[in-house]
Amino acid sequence: MKHDSATSSGDTSTSPRSARLAPAGVSGRPEGPFLRSRWVKSPGGVEELDPAALAPGFRAAGVACGLKDGGETDVGLLVCDAAEVRSAMALTRNAAVAAPVRVCREECDADAIRAVAVNSGNANAATGEQGYRDAVAMRDAAAEALGTEPRGVAVAETGVIGVPLDVKALLAGVAAAASELSETGGLEFARAIMTTDRRPKQATLRADGVTVSAQAKGAGMIEPGFATMLCFVQTDGAVDDPDPVLRTALAESMERITVDGQMSTNDMVVLQATGAAGRPVPAGLLDVVLLQLALEIVADGEGATRVGRVEVREAIHDDEAERVARAVANSPLVKTALYGRDPNWGRIAQAAGMALAGEELEELGPERIEASELGDETAEAEISVTLGRGPGRAHVYFSDLTHDYVRINAEYTT
Amino acid sequence: MKHDSATSSGDTSTSPRSARLAPAGVSGRPEGPFLRSRWVKSPGGVEELDPAALAPGFRAAGVACGLKDGGETDVGLLVCDAAEVRSAMALTRNAAVAAPVRVCREECDADAIRAVAVNSGNANAATGEQGYRDAVAMRDAAAEALGTEPRGVAVAETGVIGVPLDVKALLAGVAAAASELSETGGLEFARAIMTTDRRPKQATLRADGVTVSAQAKGAGMIEPGFATMLCFVQTDGAVDDPDPVLRTALAESMERITVDGQMSTNDMVVLQATGAAGRPVPAGLLDVVLLQLALEIVADGEGATRVGRVEVREAIHDDEAERVARAVANSPLVKTALYGRDPNWGRIAQAAGMALAGEELEELGPERIEASELGDETAEAEISVTLGRGPGRAHVYFSDLTHDYVRINAEYTT
Repeated sequence: MKHDSATSSGDTSTSPRSARLAPAGVSGRPEGPFLRSRWVKSPGGVEELDPAALAPGFRAAGVACGLKDGGETDVGLLVCDAAEVRSAMALTRNAAVAAPVRVCREECDADAIRAVAVNSGNANAATGEQGYRDAVAMRDAAAEALGTEPRGVAVAETGVIGVPLDVKALLAGVAAAASELSETGGLEFARAIMTTDRRPKQATLRADGVTVSAQAKGAGMIEPGFATMLCFVQTDGAVDDPDPVLRTALAESMERITVDGQMSTNDMVVLQATGAAGRPVPAGLLDVVLLQLALEIVADGEGATRVGRVEVREAIHDDEAERVARAVANSPLVKTALYGRDPNWGRIAQAAGMALAGEELEELGPERIEASELGDETAEAEISVTLGRGPGRAHVYFSDLTHDYVRINAEYTT
Repeated sequence: MKHDSATSSGDTSTSPRSARLAPAGVSGRPEGPFLRSRWVKSPGGVEELDPAALAPGFRAAGVACGLKDGGETDVGLLVCDAAEVRSAMALTRNAAVAAPVRVCREECDADAIRAVAVNSGNANAATGEQGYRDAVAMRDAAAEALGTEPRGVAVAETGVIGVPLDVKALLAGVAAAASELSETGGLEFARAIMTTDRRPKQATLRADGVTVSAQAKGAGMIEPGFATMLCFVQTDGAVDDPDPVLRTALAESMERITVDGQMSTNDMVVLQATGAAGRPVPAGLLDVVLLQLALEIVADGEGATRVGRVEVREAIHDDEAERVARAVANSPLVKTALYGRDPNWGRIAQAAGMALAGEELEELGPERIEASELGDETAEAEISVTLGRGPGRAHVYFSDLTHDYVRINAEYTT
């Protein structure tokens, strides 16, 4: 990911979060349809299934192995039982990368991932060579329990950093999860990969005879942790060349979001497609699943109460538009204006001008900046900047900067 | 400036600011010596004079013309009476630039600035061609009142943006200021350029028979304003080639600071040197004046309670070191750790790794990151990152991210 998201509160008080996109139901799952953002255009004919049900050919489980205090589930395992599986994997580009990301990069066949093993109690980052060996041991234990090739198992970890992994407990957890795999384990898996997420983020959608299930987490800081985004997508549809399909969908979803502009050491996305349905995944289906999950991550960002979308038009080229959009989306002045319901176009002009420092630019007055929705009470606010320089355009989704963000990150000390 | 500083609170409550570098005395000026930061190494033999006294050959004044509510002074005028004056000027690189900056860029002789006229009630930014004409009128009025060439008058403005300037009131203020110019007007001038600064920032130092006086402001948001840094430096010492001298001093002071990573539309620094003392400015004197003023701006940053200094060593080259240092200094996770007294080296590793995304990097464990001072109660905390890649190094000073920052910027709405 070029930008990922530090997300979710370690605190469950809801008072400053009354403007959330959707309240969580008794199941912990948000009420209402999954594809509910104003910015997600459903391709049509999409049926939303029980999110516990995985796409046909997949099983999953979530168990507690003791890495987390309080007995919460902290090990997730997901496996594909179909004869054939094609896959693609995207990993963080952060140079200070965690051990499981190194293992996936160096020791996995990204195009033939059959299983995914996740722990959400320890990021296994900045843990040296022992951490690397531990991540390999986790992968090998999953492969052995599932009877698969080690190179077909991806490992992901998230949680506390700089602390040695209790690998013995984790390996026992992997073995226990392998014995509890179920075709309706999607929700348990989604719960087991959460850290400080307020709620699980997952969906199972069906269109044109093809099912797509997906689980994501956007994590925050429980202890001194790294913010991490993980996302797993399964389908019985056919995807001939998963890597470009995944990268294209990510470019419009996980690559378009920011909470605090901070790139994680542990980010990972895996797409697995069996093709058993005998037909391709309907056009646009993967894209809307990933976009809605990306928006869930922003909405559940640390301290977040609102989501913004900034669109930059008429830049010289798309890259310039993206640079300006990211400068606006990551500006603490714009993010506090979103929080404060302040339609402050001047802050947007300042951030855009900073991104174009040293260049000639026509004056960015109110006729070029539409910021009125910043002042609305709507949970999803749209702003736009028209540069008048060319055909380039780009957009970014972002969360607001709130008292809770400061509280979560300043008061939860080491 | 590549980076400037959004500074100072619009609120005068002091409770969350108890760890300020120095308390303000009854004069509004901080108690104790001016050169008080642990990071400012005085060149020796420096005498601190009454800060109201300007360097010989200069006069200044501050008056109220009504741009600010409440009758506070809002027009500052400063003029050099010496036969000869050399000067240099540095302006913001922001592409969304305010009218006074355009006037200085296009219509001033940067190497022969004799006078400076400032208003602190209206930034005159995003005000179109009328704003440009108003800034020219302000310059011409100052030139006429002082009997100088218009091209020798620099104009600076700061305050509310996107609002037409009350140019009639301002021109009356310029005329009134011209009639009150005084050799001991330094403090009044420093007050007249403040917006939401908690206190004036100025000093008059003398060494080896040469006097340097300087005034700065780091502004915040009263109304939807742009954060702006202004700084004016006068000396009777000789400076043969002021432009490189100023740029070198700025590179180690105003260019090394960040409050929120936001570049202003109105930043300006002017150095004026008469040479009347018959000897050069002692080596290092300009540098320490500018560095201490830069640190004052950070310490008075919006909501700030502490100042951090991050030093990055052993980068491939200095530019890489600076990129990493700025990523650390602008990371909201590091800034909240500084606020929360949390020696969280993991957040520093994450930010550094993000700045080096896609590159090979040896693991950034605690042996490469010194962050213990983040956990101290000291007002000035030092951290370091040793990359092990080469000889490059750089450092940046930054403020913490606090509840007051969010309050100031979220709750002061348009």
